[in-house]
Amino acid sequence: MPDTPRVSAAVLIIGNEILSGRTQDTNLAHLAKTLNGYGIQVREARVVPDVEAEIVEAINALRVRYDYLFTTGGIGPTHDDITADCVAKAFGVALEIHSQIAELIQRRPSPPEVMASRMRMARVPRGGGLIDNPLGPPGFYIDNVYVMAGIPRIMQQMVASLDGKLKRGVVVRSRSVTAFVSEGQIAKDLGAIQGRYPRVDVGSYPFQRQDRFGTTLVMRGSDAGDLDAALAEVVAMIRTLGAEPEDIQEG
Amino acid sequence: MPDTPRVSAAVLIIGNEILSGRTQDTNLAHLAKTLNGYGIQVREARVVPDVEAEIVEAINALRVRYDYLFTTGGIGPTHDDITADCVAKAFGVALEIHSQIAELIQRRPSPPEVMASRMRMARVPRGGGLIDNPLGPPGFYIDNVYVMAGIPRIMQQMVASLDGKLKRGVVVRSRSVTAFVSEGQIAKDLGAIQGRYPRVDVGSYPFQRQDRFGTTLVMRGSDAGDLDAALAEVVAMIRTLGAEPEDIQEG
Repeated sequence: MPDTPRVSAAVLIIGNEILSGRTQDTNLAHLAKTLNGYGIQVREARVVPDVEAEIVEAINALRVRYDYLFTTGGIGPTHDDITADCVAKAFGVALEIHSQIAELIQRRPSPPEVMASRMRMARVPRGGGLIDNPLGPPGFYIDNVYVMAGIPRIMQQMVASLDGKLKRGVVVRSRSVTAFVSEGQIAKDLGAIQGRYPRVDVGSYPFQRQDRFGTTLVMRGSDAGDLDAALAEVVAMIRTLGAEPEDIQEG
Repeated sequence: MPDTPRVSAAVLIIGNEILSGRTQDTNLAHLAKTLNGYGIQVREARVVPDVEAEIVEAINALRVRYDYLFTTGGIGPTHDDITADCVAKAFGVALEIHSQIAELIQRRPSPPEVMASRMRMARVPRGGGLIDNPLGPPGFYIDNVYVMAGIPRIMQQMVASLDGKLKRGVVVRSRSVTAFVSEGQIAKDLGAIQGRYPRVDVGSYPFQRQDRFGTTLVMRGSDAGDLDAALAEVVAMIRTLGAEPEDIQEG
């Protein structure tokens, strides 16, 4: 088997509304799952307010550390939409009106004042390319930084349009099984299983349902053989404890 | 009016399951709202995997930058629960069995192996104090870092128990109003309103409902007079455009 590389990404969520708790972010989970399907693993996420210095700093910290950085939020026409400015600043390049976006925006006529505001959405850092958006003005990318809308429906279309256009690494698959055992009961054996499968991430996610304690055990990795073997050991461990392995899933 | 200080916080969400998209985080939004009620504003959030070096680095970056750091996740009894180890490492102190937690854990008898695993949850960095948890073993804090469970129901109890025990700064209040206007239409006037109220954060959050474009305008700040005045201007702006201000809320 050729050694497919790991391709990593960070997600930067930009917006006061996420940090105030007013809006529940759902973009991270969607991006994580979609990007994994493209062979890209999200390794870190940050949420920052609509403050230039903080956005610029986060962009520069994350873009050098991971293969890709995906940002969401702050690309509309109002004064609090400063993501394009921040990306240009982070790269030290000018922000320019992109003729292709400008043309698209101008197709829908507006009074001059409104058009001037809408035209803010045509600004792309010099050297940047476009991310398709069937629902409105495109997003953009420059180098390894992909800049997308915050509105989930639009962000989802944008990331869907990137399918096949990004570097592809391994896809991480999973196996999971649930059992009504406590984490304390399984901790030692589970740790031993983790030790035997260094290429698998074994996670334990406890829950309480109708006053019964249970846990879902999740194995993640890129080798199906490893995953199946680790799952078999986890299932055997659950049975040894006199419990029933439930809801076995492959992902 | 005495000048109440701003008290800031970061949230560090620890766990592979959030970064894989398997689990949708809801802790950030809950913490942001609850802490604001205590007079503490969340200014940044990060999500990191269950990897020691990355957790330690994030703890050390965030604890010096904000008045408080609240972490969620990684405090159970299994091998992937390494938050306590990481906090101890970040502070350069030993991890010790806390007698009060140990006693609590020992009240429920277990076979020795299981007890050893459960006792992992009694480990607290030297010098740390406890965060009450009516549902199980306590969380802990050391200096300005508060370490809580990842399970939302437990995290919520833990942060509730901190009410009145933290430094209190200003509480940020909000006013919001929704209108079926496009962001392009309001961008210029809204920017001017923001310019006149530098102590208010004016945000615009667009949406599409049954094929109509609208936006919710949110004013956030600590001075009720400022907020009411900014809201009045925003409402007037909406009416000038021939639209109807809807769903006006105070928060």
